[in-house]
Amino acid sequence: MAKEKLIKEITSMEDDFAQWYTDVCIKSQLIDYTSVKGCMVIRPYGYAIWENIQRILDGMFKETGHENVCMPMFIPESLLQKEKDHVEGFAPEVAWVTHGGSEKLEERLCVRPTSETLFCDHYKNIIHSWRDLPKLYNQWVSVVRWEKTTRPFLRSREFLWQEGHTIHATAEEAKEETVKMLNVYAEFCEKYLCIPVVKGLKTDKERFAGAVETYTIEALMHDGKALQSGTSHYFGDGFAKAFGIAYQDKENQLATPHQTSWGMTTRLIGAVIMTHGDDSGLILPPAVAPKQIMVIPIAQHKEGVIDKANEVYERLKKQFRAGIDISDQSPGWKFSEYEMKGVPLRLELGPKDIENNQCVLVRRDTREKIFVSLDELEATVEKVLEDISKSMFEKALERREAMTYEAQDLDEMKEIADNKPGFIKALWCMDQECEDKLKEIAGVSSRCMPLDQQDSIDGKCVCCGKPAKKLVYWGKAY
Amino acid sequence: MAKEKLIKEITSMEDDFAQWYTDVCIKSQLIDYTSVKGCMVIRPYGYAIWENIQRILDGMFKETGHENVCMPMFIPESLLQKEKDHVEGFAPEVAWVTHGGSEKLEERLCVRPTSETLFCDHYKNIIHSWRDLPKLYNQWVSVVRWEKTTRPFLRSREFLWQEGHTIHATAEEAKEETVKMLNVYAEFCEKYLCIPVVKGLKTDKERFAGAVETYTIEALMHDGKALQSGTSHYFGDGFAKAFGIAYQDKENQLATPHQTSWGMTTRLIGAVIMTHGDDSGLILPPAVAPKQIMVIPIAQHKEGVIDKANEVYERLKKQFRAGIDISDQSPGWKFSEYEMKGVPLRLELGPKDIENNQCVLVRRDTREKIFVSLDELEATVEKVLEDISKSMFEKALERREAMTYEAQDLDEMKEIADNKPGFIKALWCMDQECEDKLKEIAGVSSRCMPLDQQDSIDGKCVCCGKPAKKLVYWGKAY
Repeated sequence: MAKEKLIKEITSMEDDFAQWYTDVCIKSQLIDYTSVKGCMVIRPYGYAIWENIQRILDGMFKETGHENVCMPMFIPESLLQKEKDHVEGFAPEVAWVTHGGSEKLEERLCVRPTSETLFCDHYKNIIHSWRDLPKLYNQWVSVVRWEKTTRPFLRSREFLWQEGHTIHATAEEAKEETVKMLNVYAEFCEKYLCIPVVKGLKTDKERFAGAVETYTIEALMHDGKALQSGTSHYFGDGFAKAFGIAYQDKENQLATPHQTSWGMTTRLIGAVIMTHGDDSGLILPPAVAPKQIMVIPIAQHKEGVIDKANEVYERLKKQFRAGIDISDQSPGWKFSEYEMKGVPLRLELGPKDIENNQCVLVRRDTREKIFVSLDELEATVEKVLEDISKSMFEKALERREAMTYEAQDLDEMKEIADNKPGFIKALWCMDQECEDKLKEIAGVSSRCMPLDQQDSIDGKCVCCGKPAKKLVYWGKAY
Repeated sequence: MAKEKLIKEITSMEDDFAQWYTDVCIKSQLIDYTSVKGCMVIRPYGYAIWENIQRILDGMFKETGHENVCMPMFIPESLLQKEKDHVEGFAPEVAWVTHGGSEKLEERLCVRPTSETLFCDHYKNIIHSWRDLPKLYNQWVSVVRWEKTTRPFLRSREFLWQEGHTIHATAEEAKEETVKMLNVYAEFCEKYLCIPVVKGLKTDKERFAGAVETYTIEALMHDGKALQSGTSHYFGDGFAKAFGIAYQDKENQLATPHQTSWGMTTRLIGAVIMTHGDDSGLILPPAVAPKQIMVIPIAQHKEGVIDKANEVYERLKKQFRAGIDISDQSPGWKFSEYEMKGVPLRLELGPKDIENNQCVLVRRDTREKIFVSLDELEATVEKVLEDISKSMFEKALERREAMTYEAQDLDEMKEIADNKPGFIKALWCMDQECEDKLKEIAGVSSRCMPLDQQDSIDGKCVCCGKPAKKLVYWGKAY
């Protein structure tokens, strides 16, 4: 009964995907709305997922030689304006601080939408010689972009992220860094979030404001929409020149360094929800789930059950992020509560199990039941969690493959875009007019030019029919 | 030679304490100034100290049952105004956002100076029954206060901190939490930062805006000035009433919950610098030092030296935050570099040491040299790091005791305040007029009423001579 009721509270995906998403965010207590329009509270359950993401990513950054720093949250207007393309891209969507206390500021400050200008301002102070290079920096902060339409995790006026900023002696080193961090992002998504991604280059139109090249990883959500999940930018020496950053090279010549930046955000939590979730709620990848396994005693009023459940919990806690629920709610209520919250494994333990020195593991992703001897508990849980990760990734990959189409001409593109949600692979002449036309007619934007494609393309542009230069993934996007 | 030069770059404490402090912050690369007035860059070496502080404190918070969350950085003006005392305290020093992109906002938003109002706004949504209590929350964020005069770490317009916010069914529970977190703060400072603190209650005048009681830990810096290092506030039900937060208790009656908040900031890094540092630079407590031990090969051009140094480094790395410097700088340069950076232990290893299967440990705090067999390396390093922590704490405690004075009357108070930097213990009648007069005449403010004092005081107020009610620590403060 309780279970039925609880599940009914979440709108079904098929009925209304957007409402399903909102229901999951609210009912599984990831977020709360606030009095600040477009900003959310990330509640403990949501923030614990972010902490796990942070911990793993931060470890990967440090292993690749990066150090954390912290820049101010404000950018003076004159500093934001130093790089022309950059200010044009960001000025329309920043929040402006005009007063400190009761006094009007001499110069307006924007709340950082991204921190390239602040890093450049700092580099100028600390970089003088080739000995000072490279600097491989990252920061974990929040940024603000004054969006008109907002959705929890996917698009909010303030969001949490990490922004890597590096500066190198040569263009080659900087380009290598850009691709290296793209690969770190892809590995993180696939290995820890169990989300398959397409690695590619953005078109000129979709490039980050001020970048020479923007790399992206694109994931496909349950509803067939694409989600840009991380970007890595190569800046060349444009920012360095605009900010007057120069260094003495080994031959005592003045040289200009080359820069990169790369970022991933709390949007990843949205990606996890929309890649893995189902009509019962969240399904969390074991690597980032706040609790990997929940112990639920059955017939807990019977003698010895709670004691044994606690004993099992204490054992599991040493090796896993384990929880136990001995509240007075019914087992059925508890089952659906932790299903909704996406806990990868449930452990049921009742009087009969105790008699047989066993327990029951129930997988959230497949609902498979596994009877396990208590003597082999830890080893089995470890293995099952690994299996869950693998099969979550495979399931998502299969779905993506099934939802990836190919189009040869504009009619076909429009037909697929209108009727089959997903990625559309199609050739392109690299003319922005065609890109604009595809948006106008088929409602799709270029997601990326995948990295694994041939150098010379043999075929015609899906839009104009002229010789094509690149294979592109197109789609509707969040 | 190199060493001499490097040390000369730092102004001596005795000559100019403020300049010494700034020199240490800049030369040991903790911070950089920015184009944003009153805001700093926390550089990798400074941020690594903060990460260690965060990791330890966050563990202590979680062990005491707290969960991390994240509130928006903006507060609508109407929300800030809901609690009268609170808005009066903070409105004069907040930064106001008035525009989003090119549009003027309907309502101004302030950048959070502290987040009580945001937490209350959220509590109102999620607290309905006694089952929803308590909520034990914390967040790691930055806040903004529009200060006129700023100093790195000690007073900046933006600073990093944690703010704990809890809400409880009863006043007793909330009071217990307030004191519990004060004790966590004191333990953290004494055990991990090696800084002795006085635990006490703030006077009404020095209380946090909107609080019923403010507890504080006060530390004494090298120059005899006090530094408020952490505060814990009991709010009673004032905020809950102002925000309309209520819950059904177990008897189905509507009741008002009680709240607390508590915070520590990057100011702690300033406390570490000014408690332990000397004329050669930083002296970092082992628990928060980015590197606990630096391996420095001697005569590294000789065969086998770098290999052996690397071998020792690889061993140490498994157990400690170890570093190695095999750059082409001279050993003398390296010695003073890592002395300036306050690395607790230096390990020297030359050809003769290798022959004797030994190395030399040099303590940063006492400069004591310790010859150690390589067979006993890890155990010795562990013990010496513990000894360093202990003796850093003891040294700081001895200095504080030596710089703590007692005053019986106003003349004596003024005489001490003018000539002997430090804490002044003196009795007080609890009349704010006397507190104001002591500020005016002797230039001291009340730091706290220490918790360990008798309930009934036998003596006279240091200012007016009337019967005293409390023993108070007075002093000049940052």
